[in-house]
Amino acid sequence: MHSQSGPMGEFDLIERFFKTGSASNASNTTLSLGIGDDCALIKPLPGEEIAITSDMLVAGRHFFADADPEKLGGKALAVNLSDLAAMGAKPLGFTLAIALPEVDTKWLEAFSKGLFAFANQFSCPLIGGDTTAGPLTISITAFGSIPTGKAIRRSGAKIEDEIWVSGTVGDARLTLAALRHEITLSESDLKAIDHRMHQPTPRVGLGMALREVASAALDVSDGLLGDLKHILKQSQLDAEIILEQLPTSATLQKQSKAIQNQFAASGGDDYELCFTAPSSKRDVILNISKELKLPLTCIGRITCMKNSSTQIRIQGTDGKLLSDADTAALLRSFDHFAK
Amino acid sequence: MHSQSGPMGEFDLIERFFKTGSASNASNTTLSLGIGDDCALIKPLPGEEIAITSDMLVAGRHFFADADPEKLGGKALAVNLSDLAAMGAKPLGFTLAIALPEVDTKWLEAFSKGLFAFANQFSCPLIGGDTTAGPLTISITAFGSIPTGKAIRRSGAKIEDEIWVSGTVGDARLTLAALRHEITLSESDLKAIDHRMHQPTPRVGLGMALREVASAALDVSDGLLGDLKHILKQSQLDAEIILEQLPTSATLQKQSKAIQNQFAASGGDDYELCFTAPSSKRDVILNISKELKLPLTCIGRITCMKNSSTQIRIQGTDGKLLSDADTAALLRSFDHFAK
Repeated sequence: MHSQSGPMGEFDLIERFFKTGSASNASNTTLSLGIGDDCALIKPLPGEEIAITSDMLVAGRHFFADADPEKLGGKALAVNLSDLAAMGAKPLGFTLAIALPEVDTKWLEAFSKGLFAFANQFSCPLIGGDTTAGPLTISITAFGSIPTGKAIRRSGAKIEDEIWVSGTVGDARLTLAALRHEITLSESDLKAIDHRMHQPTPRVGLGMALREVASAALDVSDGLLGDLKHILKQSQLDAEIILEQLPTSATLQKQSKAIQNQFAASGGDDYELCFTAPSSKRDVILNISKELKLPLTCIGRITCMKNSSTQIRIQGTDGKLLSDADTAALLRSFDHFAK
Repeated sequence: MHSQSGPMGEFDLIERFFKTGSASNASNTTLSLGIGDDCALIKPLPGEEIAITSDMLVAGRHFFADADPEKLGGKALAVNLSDLAAMGAKPLGFTLAIALPEVDTKWLEAFSKGLFAFANQFSCPLIGGDTTAGPLTISITAFGSIPTGKAIRRSGAKIEDEIWVSGTVGDARLTLAALRHEITLSESDLKAIDHRMHQPTPRVGLGMALREVASAALDVSDGLLGDLKHILKQSQLDAEIILEQLPTSATLQKQSKAIQNQFAASGGDDYELCFTAPSSKRDVILNISKELKLPLTCIGRITCMKNSSTQIRIQGTDGKLLSDADTAALLRSFDHFAK
């Protein structure tokens, strides 16, 4: 990794905050060289391929500039592990490129602590990276292993497949609404859900369990239904969603039905997995749910494409399909949500 | 790859500027899935491992904010390919995470053109990425393949190894000095060298040829002698450098001897390879030089460590070792260079 030396003391930074904290890898035959050379080296086990994902988080856009650095460190890795989970991959390691406005020792210690707590939890060591001065920007590329040909792609959904989502959706959006003072939440309610925004749990175990079960999958980062559209587009199919089935937390259920529906359908940052599977896999899926102690909810089904572009039809509480305008409102992405 | 949707129209951006321009891979058995899913998938050929490198370039720090976007696109990939070259790896593909202050179609078209020109030249396709709004920041992670165990590491230098450098050094620094008006260059002189700063050539062919020839290698990004220290530190050895041997261009040779020495020894951004090899490999190295039509120059040798920390001793034009102060000045990094 090339570096821009200067007042940051790049090499000192890496040594001090990132090198020593690096987790050891459970299957270290795959990782032949870590930090300290021009490149890291990884070698998949025979019969495995490498899944790769990159995400960039920018201060003021993906997180508040004064966000708790420990939680931020965890979240920066979690969003990448969530992408690995969506393919069914097992985490192998990650690289970190970070621009920092200044060398703030306390901030770096906390960030590194949060980052490595996640790295250790998922046996996903830091294997290389780059540090530089600049507006606070975190770019992580994560690597996972998966048996050749077993990756769960977005393009594999089939007509009549059921559509599932893990956990609950909408709480990260509800937390943001409370922090933005769009909605008033009691302290205990906020406390019950704010980890969903600040410390999302990547569904790594679920993703691995869904290999050979799910026909298509992705992680919910921009909003459940908007993200589902990517599966539909790549599979060239439509979907029918039953609004009542969207799984929400007890805290979100205290809000108006309109808020519940909007946040569950289009709130971002949930990092749950949305996947499709033939109905013959229903029992297998319910067993996975039981074993992982993670709710998995069927929210609709895949249908054939009616027009030239993919569509989601939403069945409302009265059993009737929502109007185009109401449907569009629930498909609106995170950023465009209007109070 | 998760995304932050919003006014940028991330998916449109990827489709329009990055997806279609993606190069095809010469050995596409290794690349099973490109852009458009949660992750990319790559599979090394049997007996090969994957080299990984990440670099982050920040506007105003690594390049001028008004830099030619076409050249910038090429350089952003080139600096990563240079890291692959330093390990002896063959480029396989790369991911791009980019923060953009605004959607500037002309800028994006030019950036993408420069990026893919390099990607195509080195058969290194874009396999995934992330786009977001934010201060202009480019983060590339590049992947290369290398036969297992054949990567050229920084730690392999041995006592009495010769130290070599490819091409010439100091021209990128001379270009910067001219642009900063520290030095006046004629238009023709500037034209003769400014590609060294704006469009560096990663020494990919050389890196691959040096497998089983070089004992250690790295690419020169921060300055030749400062970077050489990383080899020495990891190999726990010292070095003796003959100042007169540092290879410089005819343009740099028009400057004062002091400037020549300073820029060649400590100027950054050259992206040449510095490597060590036993003297028994001298003929092989000179043959590689001839075949690649790339000068390779022996600039000194590795010696045993005299103190607790690694040292570089520099032999001046009079055949005598430079004083500690003069040595320190030549080891100064790029950013700290004083006029």
